[in-house]
Amino acid sequence: MLYCSKCGREYSDEFLRCPICNEPLQLPYLKGEIERGKRVWERYLEFFPFPLSLRYSLGEGDTPLVYLPNLSKQLNVELYVKNETVNPTWSFKDRGTFTAINYAISSGYKYVGTVSTGNMGASVAAYTSHAGVKSFVLLSEDIPQEKLLPIGVYGAKMIKVRGDYGELYYRSIEIGKKLGIYFINSDNPYRVEGYKSISFEIAEELQPDYVVIPTSSGGLFSGIYKGFYELKKSNIIEDMPKLVCAQALGCSPIYTALKEERENIERFENPETIAKAIKNPYPPSGNRVLRILKEGHLCEAATDEEILKAQKELAQEGLFVQPASATSLAVVQKLVSENKIEEKSVVVLILTGAGIKTTTSYLPFSTLTCGLDNLSSCLIENL
Amino acid sequence: MLYCSKCGREYSDEFLRCPICNEPLQLPYLKGEIERGKRVWERYLEFFPFPLSLRYSLGEGDTPLVYLPNLSKQLNVELYVKNETVNPTWSFKDRGTFTAINYAISSGYKYVGTVSTGNMGASVAAYTSHAGVKSFVLLSEDIPQEKLLPIGVYGAKMIKVRGDYGELYYRSIEIGKKLGIYFINSDNPYRVEGYKSISFEIAEELQPDYVVIPTSSGGLFSGIYKGFYELKKSNIIEDMPKLVCAQALGCSPIYTALKEERENIERFENPETIAKAIKNPYPPSGNRVLRILKEGHLCEAATDEEILKAQKELAQEGLFVQPASATSLAVVQKLVSENKIEEKSVVVLILTGAGIKTTTSYLPFSTLTCGLDNLSSCLIENL
Repeated sequence: MLYCSKCGREYSDEFLRCPICNEPLQLPYLKGEIERGKRVWERYLEFFPFPLSLRYSLGEGDTPLVYLPNLSKQLNVELYVKNETVNPTWSFKDRGTFTAINYAISSGYKYVGTVSTGNMGASVAAYTSHAGVKSFVLLSEDIPQEKLLPIGVYGAKMIKVRGDYGELYYRSIEIGKKLGIYFINSDNPYRVEGYKSISFEIAEELQPDYVVIPTSSGGLFSGIYKGFYELKKSNIIEDMPKLVCAQALGCSPIYTALKEERENIERFENPETIAKAIKNPYPPSGNRVLRILKEGHLCEAATDEEILKAQKELAQEGLFVQPASATSLAVVQKLVSENKIEEKSVVVLILTGAGIKTTTSYLPFSTLTCGLDNLSSCLIENL
Repeated sequence: MLYCSKCGREYSDEFLRCPICNEPLQLPYLKGEIERGKRVWERYLEFFPFPLSLRYSLGEGDTPLVYLPNLSKQLNVELYVKNETVNPTWSFKDRGTFTAINYAISSGYKYVGTVSTGNMGASVAAYTSHAGVKSFVLLSEDIPQEKLLPIGVYGAKMIKVRGDYGELYYRSIEIGKKLGIYFINSDNPYRVEGYKSISFEIAEELQPDYVVIPTSSGGLFSGIYKGFYELKKSNIIEDMPKLVCAQALGCSPIYTALKEERENIERFENPETIAKAIKNPYPPSGNRVLRILKEGHLCEAATDEEILKAQKELAQEGLFVQPASATSLAVVQKLVSENKIEEKSVVVLILTGAGIKTTTSYLPFSTLTCGLDNLSSCLIENL
């Protein structure tokens, strides 16, 4: 059973959005107890009310929470990152693909699909191949060749679709329903469930004051919210952390709607940002994120310049992330400088995807050259 | 205290190779007990006889062991992979960098270096930045620009060195000793210690018959051997698994020496293989691997064609690896077909590095194109 995330009406699993509100549906808020187990899926089994078989796992989740000593000192907060770049296809998407593919298979679907040109496409391609399920990844017509490689290598059927890419999100779900293809797009309810596992793992290690989430469709934000909410409902944590919705200023429909005090997001015109993985001008769960933000959470946006600077700073603490992921740090730097995040706060950034996936966007750096004969003097000059 | 891996003579930490045998030194074989802990470094603390501080960790290790149902069926063995591509810089090197950097810092070194154009360079650059230690990565003069990016982004000093790259391995260590730069090259004894953690983690989950290791310098092979040996010595496991040294036929100095029944390896002339990460024509721990192999372990080599086929097959089980990593599967396919690995054997492949790091080497694949209007019929045709 699914519920409208706005009006709360009940719907069967046939639906993905509320026909009345046109808002995304979600699974109910659950209460549960933590069990013993190596994998997060085993420990929080009670929080996933549908069959989850590790047969379909590639080892996603249980990622490291890493303390950043240098940036912590600089910002005067306790800064941690949840490093989602070490998932099987090197992004957080794998958690949601695992739960959604479990749902699709246990519901009898023989085909799975998604609409993505990036992390989600690669993730769905990998998991369906591992599961032995045929999959379709629908791409925009102008996808560059280099973005095809990390999806195509897993053996998924890739289809470039002419026409409006935003409309494709909805049309694919409709068509899929008729053809028996389960489309696990960005804010599919069973995909969103997977992202709860991030909250569960964070809460096992510390009690954050802020959790900062690069936000595109709103699926990740909704999932992390639901995870902490369920922990509170289950008396496992006392307080919800404040969530921070981090957007790129060049494509910031949620940030803009909040600033302009709108009830609903509007399509962001002429989106342009280096943070491609969160460049979604009309996010399907945008209004849902807006509703959550109004409960007292935060939203901030960063310029491309700030994002690139943050990407470099994270790399220089040993973590090479996509520009979209670096948005989290850029936004925290802003909020700290404006005293919206208090000194000594415990802050967790969600690092959503690996930097080596998008090697075109980084900052310049230089090399020296010397001969084997003068290596010693070259090193001495640079000590 | 270090010991010659051949003659057993004792040396101080000043030495890295035995001045008499010219063979690599190693730490003693240890006995210990397993403790409780989230991280492998905590659980096996007794097996690391030098200070290990998690302050210098980026979350390496504790990687997933994944069962491959399709390939298992095809090969009639129980096939697992130890997925080292989900380490912080997406290769197994991070484990050894963590232990070696701990040693370097606790020994008072202010500078760290390495000789690498690939995974190890990126790993050392990331860990030294995180630790706040200045580092030098020595590169061959002809390194392609694209290989600089994943190292340079972390902020290490990169120096291209003219002259023989093999000689640079030894010269860097010598010069470093004088200048106070600790060079943690491929088979540095404290780096090799880190790789033991792979054996510890595998043994926690299953009892493999075979562990297949892509082998270049011999550091990883030596470390995994030492790990299982210490578990046996500590009565934690009953039997050592058989190790399989996997090489690319186009650069197979260890395989060739074994086949020709030599006592020592010889420099492999005109090395040429797509498996760049294991293209080492004169591996510094080659003789040490040879000595281990003669205790009853296996060695096999695969052609580039076989490696590329294996890379594709692994991707189609959801794991996209570097060609070097795929050598492990290619070699198992050979050994199974020659009945050198028995039916139903439990086989673990070490997947050493991520495929997205080397996007130039994969196999072709195709895409379809359609319009939003005829998406439905396009999907139907391809179900």
